[in-house]
Amino acid sequence: MDLCIKDAHIVTGKSDGMYIGTGCIGINEGRIAYIGTAEVEADMTIDAKSMIAMPGLFNAHTHTSMILMRNYVADKSLEDWLAKSIFPIEDKLTAEYIKNASILAAGEMIKGGTVGFLDMYYHVDETAQTALETGMKANISLGILTSGEDGQDYEKAKAQSQRFHRKYNGSGEGNIRTSLEVHSVYLYDEEGLRHSADFAGNNGLMVHAHLHETRTEVENSVKNYGMRPIEVFENCGLLDVPVTAAHCVHMNDNDLAIAKERSVRPVHCPSSNLFLASGFARITRMQELGIPIALGTDGAASNNDLDMFGEMHLAGLIHKGNSGDATVVNASSVIRMATKSGARAMGFNDSGTLEVGMDADIILVDTTELHNTPMLDPVNALIYSAKASDVDTVIVRGKILMKGRELKTIDEEKARYNVNKCIEKLY
Amino acid sequence: MDLCIKDAHIVTGKSDGMYIGTGCIGINEGRIAYIGTAEVEADMTIDAKSMIAMPGLFNAHTHTSMILMRNYVADKSLEDWLAKSIFPIEDKLTAEYIKNASILAAGEMIKGGTVGFLDMYYHVDETAQTALETGMKANISLGILTSGEDGQDYEKAKAQSQRFHRKYNGSGEGNIRTSLEVHSVYLYDEEGLRHSADFAGNNGLMVHAHLHETRTEVENSVKNYGMRPIEVFENCGLLDVPVTAAHCVHMNDNDLAIAKERSVRPVHCPSSNLFLASGFARITRMQELGIPIALGTDGAASNNDLDMFGEMHLAGLIHKGNSGDATVVNASSVIRMATKSGARAMGFNDSGTLEVGMDADIILVDTTELHNTPMLDPVNALIYSAKASDVDTVIVRGKILMKGRELKTIDEEKARYNVNKCIEKLY
Repeated sequence: MDLCIKDAHIVTGKSDGMYIGTGCIGINEGRIAYIGTAEVEADMTIDAKSMIAMPGLFNAHTHTSMILMRNYVADKSLEDWLAKSIFPIEDKLTAEYIKNASILAAGEMIKGGTVGFLDMYYHVDETAQTALETGMKANISLGILTSGEDGQDYEKAKAQSQRFHRKYNGSGEGNIRTSLEVHSVYLYDEEGLRHSADFAGNNGLMVHAHLHETRTEVENSVKNYGMRPIEVFENCGLLDVPVTAAHCVHMNDNDLAIAKERSVRPVHCPSSNLFLASGFARITRMQELGIPIALGTDGAASNNDLDMFGEMHLAGLIHKGNSGDATVVNASSVIRMATKSGARAMGFNDSGTLEVGMDADIILVDTTELHNTPMLDPVNALIYSAKASDVDTVIVRGKILMKGRELKTIDEEKARYNVNKCIEKLY
Repeated sequence: MDLCIKDAHIVTGKSDGMYIGTGCIGINEGRIAYIGTAEVEADMTIDAKSMIAMPGLFNAHTHTSMILMRNYVADKSLEDWLAKSIFPIEDKLTAEYIKNASILAAGEMIKGGTVGFLDMYYHVDETAQTALETGMKANISLGILTSGEDGQDYEKAKAQSQRFHRKYNGSGEGNIRTSLEVHSVYLYDEEGLRHSADFAGNNGLMVHAHLHETRTEVENSVKNYGMRPIEVFENCGLLDVPVTAAHCVHMNDNDLAIAKERSVRPVHCPSSNLFLASGFARITRMQELGIPIALGTDGAASNNDLDMFGEMHLAGLIHKGNSGDATVVNASSVIRMATKSGARAMGFNDSGTLEVGMDADIILVDTTELHNTPMLDPVNALIYSAKASDVDTVIVRGKILMKGRELKTIDEEKARYNVNKCIEKLY
């Protein structure tokens, strides 16, 4: 074996057997080769006593480089926030900014136990390169329209987009995937949506979209199309390809029935939905319907971090308070949102659970800090008391990206320095 | 000067001038003696470059020793949780358990930037002693009934309670205060409530109560008294003394009018109210009415930690999502909940803001971690991206309780060991 993780509390992420006690995980050639109580021979052994081993976290909706606007504005309405604060900064973003921002974001994500992310933003080559260089898994989205541009020449746009998808989809020995950005029903017109459906189908791409985020989005869709956003997507053929849909807040029963029937994958983004006052996604109902839900941070500008432990914590809490029922959205179900469902929502089928044969995408969470003591239940602890800062070790396909909280593929000091240099020019 | 904190980003906690830029804080004989841009001469200087200096946090409602049940049960209804899981453990608690648990809880609180706490639990002497030994500020509550006991002999109960209050109220050079526990309208009968009002008035004590936490509490109060809980309190004379009331979730307009008129201090406990599905306190309305709101974690069993940064984060987020208005409960107002309002709610009038003449209860929050980079706005950062683990230094009345995340008055390893020993016997 290449690597042995010994004496860990093993939280598998599987619905049957979420917690299987203390044991050892053997890793060979990037995959999990053994899980059990024996200690396996390996080139390297990590002593994980008092640590929880769990599947790495997948951040299934983000715009990573928006860390450049972290905490810039808060306590504003969505419209004010976007138009007055975010857009003017985004107008100035160059490839250099995205390069530096995406490296810092990758570092932040790894330090919080995130092993993969689904990203939608500008200068996608830079973000894809960052994922390759840092060893993370990533699915990078690029559309056939650039938000805000007049995209009438679809053939040219498709050719341009295709070059990116051909270059990166499956690169990094499969660590990098790509998807078609279809930003939303409000930034794309019907022609753009139909061309997108066509392009995704022809190129075997999944779609990454914003869907039913705000009441205004739904109302405008009904006004413009006589249909709700998910119906517009269906009508334009977009639900004939796999769709991962961020937010899904304002969904009525019929919207949810369509999502269930057409296997749309909602990405719950609790911090962002609260920060921008979008509301509470109907997670309890989705779970009742058996719709697999992924979890995402959204961009840091509406969060204001990329902390999946924070999202898990919120997902575990807010639906109890909102429904008046403390039994809903239990800790195990939240772990599955952030792991297996997240991996599937971005097209990684060999990750998300600790099982022999799966990719070795594993994090070790230290439980000795006072805020986790006593450690009476590892599954509850992960959702209700553990924090991003408890993540000790991050492994992606058998490669160690962090150990003892030290990043192995990113120079943290340099990442900070470069982003702060960008900030001086940007503001 | 005894101590100089230099080059800090100073967040004062004052409503006018919340953030005053980078500067120096001079401390002498436990009090803030200077705030300004000059560096003052001092016996010791702390370089706080890239750190935010802010008032220490006050956890205004907790049962600290419930850390013994941290993560023990989750995703259960309040009734199940209490009757089946919590009460059977509480039946076994001795002074030894409380001693060890309260030390660990104090360590956890200090590591998260908390300088003072308002506590209601068993074996109060142990908790008071822990506060004295660890250098924290604390207000420890003891009633004239012990929950669950038949307290018919009020004179005996009052004499017993009085001994505690006389011994500890004002001890530790004023660091320790005491208050009268009046658990709730459901654990006290009318006679007990009237005796409590009488005792608090005669002994100059503030009252610490649970009030309007759940719908059931309110409904039962109406059934039993023909009045809502705050009306029962008023009717029994309890609002003639200062009352700090945890939760205040199910408050109608009339309840809020009484709270405002009688200066009742609500303690918002967002984690607990979500975890136990109690609901959303009407914080926005309270702010409109000008009611000062404090913030608390409640016990770790319903949280499951004692992290005031977590509570600030939730307070800043959930009311936006719940109201659909992203402008409500802004970052500055949340900082004031956790600092000045908290201090006042537990009777500390010389703390809660960074101002010359106030007690030097100060924390330094490191902003260099990737999740806080770039640091575009210190006030937003404290609520929306900073975490308990960013707290570097904690000072109470000029005494350093933590520096570089190292506790100075608590042996962390020993605290952990002792609690884990208790757990072996308890479960």
